[in-house]
Amino acid sequence: MAKVLVSKEENYAQWYNDLVLKSGLAENSAVRGCMVIKPYGYAIWEKMRDELDRMFKATGHENAYFPLFIPKSFFSREADHVEGFAKECAVVTHYRLKNDEEKGGIIVDPEAKLEEELIIRPTSETIIWHSYKNWIQSYRDLPILINQWANVVRWEMRTRLFLRTTEFLWQEGHTAHATREEAMEEAMQMMRIYAEFTENFLAIPVITGTKTESEKFAGAVETLTLEALMQDGKALQAGTSHFLGQNFARAFDVQFTNKEGKLDYVWATSWGMTTRMIGALIMAHSDNHGLVLPPRVAPIQVVIIPIYKGRDEFPAIAETAERIRKELTDRGISVKFDDRDTHKPGWKFAEYELKGVPLRIALGPRDIEQGTVELARRDTLEKQVLPGEGISAHISSLLEEIQENLRRKALQFRNENTHRVESWDELVDVLERRGGFALAHWDGTRESEDRIKETKATIRCLPLDGVKEIGKCVVSGKPSGQRVVIAKAY
Amino acid sequence: MAKVLVSKEENYAQWYNDLVLKSGLAENSAVRGCMVIKPYGYAIWEKMRDELDRMFKATGHENAYFPLFIPKSFFSREADHVEGFAKECAVVTHYRLKNDEEKGGIIVDPEAKLEEELIIRPTSETIIWHSYKNWIQSYRDLPILINQWANVVRWEMRTRLFLRTTEFLWQEGHTAHATREEAMEEAMQMMRIYAEFTENFLAIPVITGTKTESEKFAGAVETLTLEALMQDGKALQAGTSHFLGQNFARAFDVQFTNKEGKLDYVWATSWGMTTRMIGALIMAHSDNHGLVLPPRVAPIQVVIIPIYKGRDEFPAIAETAERIRKELTDRGISVKFDDRDTHKPGWKFAEYELKGVPLRIALGPRDIEQGTVELARRDTLEKQVLPGEGISAHISSLLEEIQENLRRKALQFRNENTHRVESWDELVDVLERRGGFALAHWDGTRESEDRIKETKATIRCLPLDGVKEIGKCVVSGKPSGQRVVIAKAY
Repeated sequence: MAKVLVSKEENYAQWYNDLVLKSGLAENSAVRGCMVIKPYGYAIWEKMRDELDRMFKATGHENAYFPLFIPKSFFSREADHVEGFAKECAVVTHYRLKNDEEKGGIIVDPEAKLEEELIIRPTSETIIWHSYKNWIQSYRDLPILINQWANVVRWEMRTRLFLRTTEFLWQEGHTAHATREEAMEEAMQMMRIYAEFTENFLAIPVITGTKTESEKFAGAVETLTLEALMQDGKALQAGTSHFLGQNFARAFDVQFTNKEGKLDYVWATSWGMTTRMIGALIMAHSDNHGLVLPPRVAPIQVVIIPIYKGRDEFPAIAETAERIRKELTDRGISVKFDDRDTHKPGWKFAEYELKGVPLRIALGPRDIEQGTVELARRDTLEKQVLPGEGISAHISSLLEEIQENLRRKALQFRNENTHRVESWDELVDVLERRGGFALAHWDGTRESEDRIKETKATIRCLPLDGVKEIGKCVVSGKPSGQRVVIAKAY
Repeated sequence: MAKVLVSKEENYAQWYNDLVLKSGLAENSAVRGCMVIKPYGYAIWEKMRDELDRMFKATGHENAYFPLFIPKSFFSREADHVEGFAKECAVVTHYRLKNDEEKGGIIVDPEAKLEEELIIRPTSETIIWHSYKNWIQSYRDLPILINQWANVVRWEMRTRLFLRTTEFLWQEGHTAHATREEAMEEAMQMMRIYAEFTENFLAIPVITGTKTESEKFAGAVETLTLEALMQDGKALQAGTSHFLGQNFARAFDVQFTNKEGKLDYVWATSWGMTTRMIGALIMAHSDNHGLVLPPRVAPIQVVIIPIYKGRDEFPAIAETAERIRKELTDRGISVKFDDRDTHKPGWKFAEYELKGVPLRIALGPRDIEQGTVELARRDTLEKQVLPGEGISAHISSLLEEIQENLRRKALQFRNENTHRVESWDELVDVLERRGGFALAHWDGTRESEDRIKETKATIRCLPLDGVKEIGKCVVSGKPSGQRVVIAKAY
């Protein structure tokens, strides 16, 4: 069979792009930097969304929906926020087209110019805090625990499918609290939920930590982050949770009467996870045959492929296939029986390997005769012939095993590619040759951080569970109390 | 207790607006014509979305996601389409803001002007058919059965919460077929699904039919519609399904090789239902006490309110409440036990009446003593004291009864407000005084239709199940073969 993908060792970027296209996840659209998420890619997003939504609701959050448009003036109210987002936003200036009387076609009607331009939301803190002002008078109105599933737009100059697109889908949580402590605990809770989701559902281990001043969200007091390691040794930020302090409450004048009867500004958090995580999912597990999907996020968990020469062999195979399909479906496992006669089994094998379906069952006349099935695992590519009796219970536990195996493999990869470095030379060696996470002492200054950025790497985070350890900054030699995670990143 | 709403008899428009605001469904935002859908309103939308999504998937449709932006030139390709949508669209012309060096604040950076303006999608036929061109070569690639859940923008001059907003949420199905018959059957199927959803889930009866030439979707060959009657006697279009013929395939040059090996243009449908249906839901069932929600779409189906004087009475009430809550939850019924001590029972009664919760359970010390519960229906406002024993089974069937009662009431209202008219004077009498649907003969000409529109009413549809009946057009007196539905509409 022809190789459909360039190997990732040969050209990682092309391997990734080809994989996204050929497995039918997404493609570029006619609009620069915007993608079309195709049904298979969207089905993965639906699984992710449903699981996150369940976790959000289990912790007391509700969904709502705020406008796509943000008045330009809202942007300027929070000084850091506008600095961070003004440079990459889509601006609506007009509200009508008209026929071009001279040249034909249609043109923007110059008479339909907006008094105040509207920004397509790159994130919704400003429009949401403008609303919260009317919702909050007293501590009895708090907390507000709201999440929104939405599209946002950031005008990126260099885009890549899923990883960085002009428009992307995400959820953004925006909460309001009566005390600093409660808001900080909310930000921490959401970071833990993201970590649990990423590790248990996507099988991607993460390091949680805080961002440096220069890397934090524009408008945040503190940004909590999850950092994952991709197979090419680069880091990927897998969600962030921000403690916003009273910054947006001050910007939008949102005060409340506290229990002591005094006026105070409201405390805030925001947190988001995006379609970018589909990119992380691909890059964390896939191989040169195609996608490898952890069972919990796989739209199809088991595919059954009939193998027969004469059409007369088909009915018996189909009967067994349907029986297995039903047994698995009853266990809540999603199964596809691909009985198309327009494609050969070999083509189908390659297709579902490319699509990363965790388990494949092949059923031929011999299997029917002997009461067996051939089972192939996508993660290890191992094949086994097993008795058909009790197969659904076996598959059920095998899917759990595959989920855990992928997580373990990713963790092992990360451990093997996490390097403690003690000097500038060692840091450069990791960043430029070995790849992966470098754990290095940093003196906490902007100067040393800027020097690190010259290597095109960044301080990914100050890990939350980092062991306190006295050392010397790899840049300045000055004292440092903790190692930070440094890596090149997506 | 103070009346919170103006009565609908007094001022229907204000009743509606106050109801939306006070029941916490939605509110206006800082952006002209755009609303904030608040958690309670969004929870209703989630229920509607999940049910429709289930119905779409059960009929073989998949979800995908296409860009928010449409290049201006795409719009001009289908002549009727651009006529229909160019006048009410938001146009992105720039992609960056910058600091205003002279006056402070931020301004649109004139150097960041787009070469081609981007339109915020008012509907996605053009961008989707541009993609389909690359997906379709042969009849083997057909049908494509895709749906998208998305936000769209139409620059409306006069807006009303849910009913007509600049931005709204919807689903839009876009399917591609090898034959005219298959596409037409798809359009019909989706209309039937919408009708089933609207009648069984929202308890709103609909008349299905086709739109006239002047009222059909811009770019469609035929528009199928569902028309519902609101309590003020006005019609509301509750979803449309379009047979697009080969119009968009021609505009975007999407040809395929058919089974006979010949090139042909692909046949298309599109169909959509929007957050406007929340407006329909409110206006079909609600009363002067507030919302009345059919149980299937109610985010909270049963609320339990404890009634006690001394705090020592509370534990026994809470124990019973929790037991009932658990029993109901186990039956898949959503229950809220409102045990807040910050609000009095009377306040809570009014609050959940306003919010349209179908059933209310009140539990006091006497109930605990005697093993009873007080049950109140929102639809009839009837109260009953019942034995607590077996209450969950009773509630389960009562919710079904309420659902059916609301549908029956709405149907009865529609029947009472549907008038066969035989002359122009009778038509005007219905439209200007009596309200409701007028069933009148129409000669099928644009002239007669325009004359009808002068009354501010429109031909809502040519009913699909209309009895063939020879008559005379109420405008021209010319012969007509079928009655049409005429009404003023939202």
